[in-house]
Amino acid sequence: MITRPGSKTSARVWTIEGGRARLHPDDLATEEPLEIRLLAGNERRTLAVTMRTPGNDFELAAGFLHSEGIIAGRDEIARISYCIDPEVDADQRYNIVNVSIRRSTLPELAPLERHVFTSSACGVCGKASLDALAIRGCAVVPDGPSVPIETLYRLPEALREAQGVFRKTGGLHAAALFDPDGSLIALREDVGRHNALDKLIGWALLEGRLPLERGILLLSGRASFELVQKSVVAGIPVVAAVSAPSSLAVETARRFGVTLIGFLRGERCNVYAGRERLVLPEGAA
Amino acid sequence: MITRPGSKTSARVWTIEGGRARLHPDDLATEEPLEIRLLAGNERRTLAVTMRTPGNDFELAAGFLHSEGIIAGRDEIARISYCIDPEVDADQRYNIVNVSIRRSTLPELAPLERHVFTSSACGVCGKASLDALAIRGCAVVPDGPSVPIETLYRLPEALREAQGVFRKTGGLHAAALFDPDGSLIALREDVGRHNALDKLIGWALLEGRLPLERGILLLSGRASFELVQKSVVAGIPVVAAVSAPSSLAVETARRFGVTLIGFLRGERCNVYAGRERLVLPEGAA
Repeated sequence: MITRPGSKTSARVWTIEGGRARLHPDDLATEEPLEIRLLAGNERRTLAVTMRTPGNDFELAAGFLHSEGIIAGRDEIARISYCIDPEVDADQRYNIVNVSIRRSTLPELAPLERHVFTSSACGVCGKASLDALAIRGCAVVPDGPSVPIETLYRLPEALREAQGVFRKTGGLHAAALFDPDGSLIALREDVGRHNALDKLIGWALLEGRLPLERGILLLSGRASFELVQKSVVAGIPVVAAVSAPSSLAVETARRFGVTLIGFLRGERCNVYAGRERLVLPEGAA
Repeated sequence: MITRPGSKTSARVWTIEGGRARLHPDDLATEEPLEIRLLAGNERRTLAVTMRTPGNDFELAAGFLHSEGIIAGRDEIARISYCIDPEVDADQRYNIVNVSIRRSTLPELAPLERHVFTSSACGVCGKASLDALAIRGCAVVPDGPSVPIETLYRLPEALREAQGVFRKTGGLHAAALFDPDGSLIALREDVGRHNALDKLIGWALLEGRLPLERGILLLSGRASFELVQKSVVAGIPVVAAVSAPSSLAVETARRFGVTLIGFLRGERCNVYAGRERLVLPEGAA
């Protein structure tokens, strides 16, 4: 039986407060790819694959087509449906939306195509995305390093101190690389969080420092699939975010041996994967 | 003379606190498109156009190519440079990065192409993006409605109350539509803020409510070019964000007659464009 993905995904999560850890059930925001297909007459074309939270998918497809200037009103839509193509795996059908428009042929889409935005958010389902990473030859990140929890707690303040531009404009995401003793190695900022991380990894690449096998990555916002995916490709073993991770970020971290930390604030954090790299004070639970 | 764009852009901004407004200079995080081109032998191809903050552009291009699996190390790169193509407008050359790789032909990019992500963040420069909107027939948003500042101040709390999923997972962006008296009309959430807005606009389209000429849009995070662009296409006159807008978001709002509000928190906000729609208490400065 096929179940439609929900907007929340259950997970077992470690919460560490001070030096004590406890395991408990938690809800993650679901992140899965949605492929938006446009159909007219006998023609069909994939317009976009976007990483989204399941729910209101038909609205998402309709709104996307409107924003892109492909449709102006609902009268132009003949039908919106999930994919029932027998060639598509059953569990992926709720990740593909077909929008049929009242035309005999597809509209001229060249202007849209010219400006496509490539993204590592690929594949028609989460599993396919993870498989693509594996196929690309991304190995599980090696063991180590060990990171004392007190070191981890200090990182957000170190990031804030270093983030000069942020204080001035309030509008930039940051990606920062630390070594296992908590020293800041490099920091990059951008209006787009994926760009901040690309800049940081690009710096490491141009410096001949890849893979970043002893690096701790700190993200100023949330941890999405795309950010964890880039970390895996760069070989980063520990990814910490000030805010929440998505379901697919957690799944990716678990599959590729990455330690994933969220809600890192004060003397508290959640650990979603790879807790073995974190060292609690002796005698702690 | 061509100047390279900086990471900050100066703007004159109204800050309204309580019922009083004052105009002052402020810095915005710069947002401009970056086109990443891959070159090998005599072949050339645009791989991506990403909306980014200028600075560390070569790192951004290198990191992007690495994350996408196109290059594994710096030895594969022959040269990274800004575009000096004479066919490109002088003021756009710092928005195009050419990466030459040590190969006689471009690598097989089909797997990447298959998963492209179309984006409304188009064009090789901000001006081109705005022109594209104008060309698409987007008119300046009509005058009205008038919004009392007290009404605006109430919206973030109304959003938080309505945002059930957020409280549970902490991982979702929200886009909410209010009418001019502050009543919530619709709310959509997603791990991607552009998806939350696409869902909201798609809902309006499917309900036959476009254009949203009397709508106030509230965004739970930052206001980027892409979000303001979608609002313009949907005819939304007032866009308010809990966090900062980018330079290109402000430029787009000004050009298309949108009221753009940022840092809407408590009894305080910044107004970046279209202040005439906001009504201050009588007798206020």
